[in-house]
Amino acid sequence: MNLPPRTIERLSKYRRLLKKYPKTEGLYIFSHHLARLLNLTPVQVRRDLMLIGLSGNHRKGYNITELLKVISQTIDTEQGHNLAIVGMGNLGRAVTRFIRKNETRMNIVAGFDIDQSKLNETIEGVPCYHISQIEEYIKVLSVDIAILTTSPESAQEIADRVIRSGVTGILNFTSVHLDVPKEIYLKDYDIITSLEEIGFFIKSPLQ
Amino acid sequence: MNLPPRTIERLSKYRRLLKKYPKTEGLYIFSHHLARLLNLTPVQVRRDLMLIGLSGNHRKGYNITELLKVISQTIDTEQGHNLAIVGMGNLGRAVTRFIRKNETRMNIVAGFDIDQSKLNETIEGVPCYHISQIEEYIKVLSVDIAILTTSPESAQEIADRVIRSGVTGILNFTSVHLDVPKEIYLKDYDIITSLEEIGFFIKSPLQ
Repeated sequence: MNLPPRTIERLSKYRRLLKKYPKTEGLYIFSHHLARLLNLTPVQVRRDLMLIGLSGNHRKGYNITELLKVISQTIDTEQGHNLAIVGMGNLGRAVTRFIRKNETRMNIVAGFDIDQSKLNETIEGVPCYHISQIEEYIKVLSVDIAILTTSPESAQEIADRVIRSGVTGILNFTSVHLDVPKEIYLKDYDIITSLEEIGFFIKSPLQ
Repeated sequence: MNLPPRTIERLSKYRRLLKKYPKTEGLYIFSHHLARLLNLTPVQVRRDLMLIGLSGNHRKGYNITELLKVISQTIDTEQGHNLAIVGMGNLGRAVTRFIRKNETRMNIVAGFDIDQSKLNETIEGVPCYHISQIEEYIKVLSVDIAILTTSPESAQEIADRVIRSGVTGILNFTSVHLDVPKEIYLKDYDIITSLEEIGFFIKSPLQ
């Protein structure tokens, strides 16, 4: 199915929001209600859901159970995804813990670090290997998504290596611009750039 | 100056990239060169720079020193921004360390946590206070940006409290949708949603 990134993002949010309700069998929700809960427009919600083949009932809205089912069929692959975290420092460990706390189809199967002392340890529930073994383990463990939390200096080299080993999706925390082939899906979490963006938009009128 | 968020993001990236070059006085760069380094189009680069009043020389491109100066005048406030991190767990500490390693005009002036043992400690170089003191310290320290790395359960309450105390920009790591007044600049780093987005787009053709 050919869906825009923003739609996928919102579908993921609809699901996460609706999953928080304890009992939803037989319940319905209106697009304007869902929109309000997520600061969107009802038109946006209806368009997203139409793209995955859902249309609401005029009187009752959308059947929540069906909505959750269809979103999951759209977003999830049957076997989920295998993730590796490259860089098991503070940030890598925090991200690992965060993902494992959430119920997802993302399986963190390996962590990599240059620190010999972390070798063959289990950190935050994830086996940790030396960075020299990236190629070997990414292939054997069928890792398809890598989260990069390495030093800026090694970011590009690591990206090249994980891609060569079969990774096709990258979440990049290194604040380094990565040069990747166009078939790789790259998402940047560039904390400094985001803070500068926030800083710009909140400049007080006096300045 | 009225600039779109994406332009600010890119200006921040141009600056960070150009600052990495050791000696740039008297040097020029072409828009297509800058574009290639950041996977953008030359048209995008030229439009961004035109928006801040810069136009390149046809033969030489843009004077790098001037470019850096004008970007900084645009993005930075004179006194920088005062940041607080709410939630000094793994993720909060990692983010703190990450920001402090970079050279920015973002001053992390306080961390907050519910853990009594962190009280009045200096963590990653930042004084840490109890979460009950948020209102007091945010006002006294003139914090204008808050980074939220709290538990999902307390995220909305914390957001309400920092906003009431004067914060106008929020970087939200909690994966919770926050309801904030429209004059607040909110940016979400929703790791789970981003991974699901990546996961969707790298689905193999066989599935």
